[in-house]
Amino acid sequence: MKATVGGKPRDIRAVWFEDGKVMMIDQRRLPAEVAVKAFSGYPDVAEAIRNMTTRGAPSIGASAAYAMCLAALEGCDLAKAAKDIKAARPTANDLFYAVDYMAAKLSGGADPIEAADGYAQMMVDKCVRIGEFGAGLIKDGMKLMTHCNAGALATVDVGTALAPMRKAKEQGKKFFVYASETRPRLQGMQLTAWELGQEGIDHAIIPDGASAYYMSKGVDMIITGADRIAANGDFANKIGTFDKAIAAKHFGIPFYVAAPISTFDFSTENGDGIVIEQRSEEEVTMIGGMRIAPEGSPALNPAFDVTPAALVTGFITEKGILKPDEIAKVNQ
Amino acid sequence: MKATVGGKPRDIRAVWFEDGKVMMIDQRRLPAEVAVKAFSGYPDVAEAIRNMTTRGAPSIGASAAYAMCLAALEGCDLAKAAKDIKAARPTANDLFYAVDYMAAKLSGGADPIEAADGYAQMMVDKCVRIGEFGAGLIKDGMKLMTHCNAGALATVDVGTALAPMRKAKEQGKKFFVYASETRPRLQGMQLTAWELGQEGIDHAIIPDGASAYYMSKGVDMIITGADRIAANGDFANKIGTFDKAIAAKHFGIPFYVAAPISTFDFSTENGDGIVIEQRSEEEVTMIGGMRIAPEGSPALNPAFDVTPAALVTGFITEKGILKPDEIAKVNQ
Repeated sequence: MKATVGGKPRDIRAVWFEDGKVMMIDQRRLPAEVAVKAFSGYPDVAEAIRNMTTRGAPSIGASAAYAMCLAALEGCDLAKAAKDIKAARPTANDLFYAVDYMAAKLSGGADPIEAADGYAQMMVDKCVRIGEFGAGLIKDGMKLMTHCNAGALATVDVGTALAPMRKAKEQGKKFFVYASETRPRLQGMQLTAWELGQEGIDHAIIPDGASAYYMSKGVDMIITGADRIAANGDFANKIGTFDKAIAAKHFGIPFYVAAPISTFDFSTENGDGIVIEQRSEEEVTMIGGMRIAPEGSPALNPAFDVTPAALVTGFITEKGILKPDEIAKVNQ
Repeated sequence: MKATVGGKPRDIRAVWFEDGKVMMIDQRRLPAEVAVKAFSGYPDVAEAIRNMTTRGAPSIGASAAYAMCLAALEGCDLAKAAKDIKAARPTANDLFYAVDYMAAKLSGGADPIEAADGYAQMMVDKCVRIGEFGAGLIKDGMKLMTHCNAGALATVDVGTALAPMRKAKEQGKKFFVYASETRPRLQGMQLTAWELGQEGIDHAIIPDGASAYYMSKGVDMIITGADRIAANGDFANKIGTFDKAIAAKHFGIPFYVAAPISTFDFSTENGDGIVIEQRSEEEVTMIGGMRIAPEGSPALNPAFDVTPAALVTGFITEKGILKPDEIAKVNQ
């Protein structure tokens, strides 16, 4: 099913279902090419989540929903499938949320394809709402900063952090976006800059370490996505987010986190309870199959960091913009 | 002339003079190989500074001294040579300091080779003193963090930020160093980790954006070098230093800057007067000759940032450890 935004079909979609297969843009190939891969078994979809063919919390969630859909269509043991799919990556809350959503729908007798398509479109609709709420924060002439990719690719379509920018652009506002490149996997350079380019939004790629430099020259607002948000507002997001939030506080720059309610983990009290995925050191020490680090020098590669709620100005959600102490009221 | 440290010859030296030529380790080839290049005219040495065959403020200074030496030996117009050499890069104070030092020595009738060798060895001796003062700050079991490369390669030999670590290791102390990789040119990964490995110092490479994550887990001290230090203690150093200094302040972690007095620019009142070199965007958008960024997405590449004095715990110099408000007393 192609995504629709405001009733219009969209060409960029991270994941969808077609002819019995789960289709994904292979995000590891961007920006060089828009390559689409098809998966026909739930373990292959789980592997595509693990190897980051698709990534970004809401896209991971939708992919997991489609994986559950395949498991149901193929008559697999759904409890085992749910466990296998949840094991693909440890941090993004949407993964667990989507699997539980599908398990409930399927046990209620829902059509697997309709349920998964419904989950994916629900995410897109939430992103549209996030964009509408967030666009109100963007004024003409502003300089924004984002980190990693919380765009259409990360969220089936539209995006979380990029949704307000898309909407503000549509409203005719003029603004500029610093996209930090996001080592080691360069999602900021290779996915966010690509999406901003597609939308005609004025932007530049900066090294992650240039954040404070540009903030000191004048940045009006920072917007990132999130992979999991604890009940108190501490949130996990791509490594490097914490550094930017601290610097934003130092300079008095508003720091917003855009995420659907599916990213909130109300069962986790605070950031200490969020599991941080440690990825392979080769993502840091190798480029294009070649080792660029000295032999014998190890590297550390935490995929996420946890930013305390105290550094967050507000969470832009499909239910409005919430201060950290207002999160509890949406858990109903 | 091979460098001597405490009377013993050293094998790693960034720049030296031999058989009428200026010799340099080509730092762009590390860690893959230790390649030595020879230069026989002062414009070639200026070009080697510009293209970063050698880098790091004190190594740039020594290279500039040898460039002036070549100009004198070849009977060039020394005023023109001084101007050409100073134009190689805009930020490092040592470049201007070294050219002026040599101009004064040569006009006083000094032997060009002896004067330049003397300048280079003076830098090494200063670094030894920096190491002695700084090692006193390092205690058993500490976790340190550094950025970019302020090691032997950056300073003819021994290093500034790495000098205290070398000395502490020699004193038998056990400690651990986080070396942030330092995009875009990866001097932290490719030079600092290489030097730490050579010295047998326990370390790991981290992405620049993982600084706050590891600081939140426990870092005891941060030591960086500097390219230029204004009279009030504001200092320019590799892009990404400012982010780390802000995060260090947030976590209450001591932040030290190790640099010889030649890096202090007493004629510049504060950081606003420091010229920041903007380097080519290809350093960010290309790797190994291949574009990795989307077509049409520009990148920004400031080589340095300026960290305000208020974020500095102390400057480790050859004259002792100075608080920012004690800098004025060494300008005598």
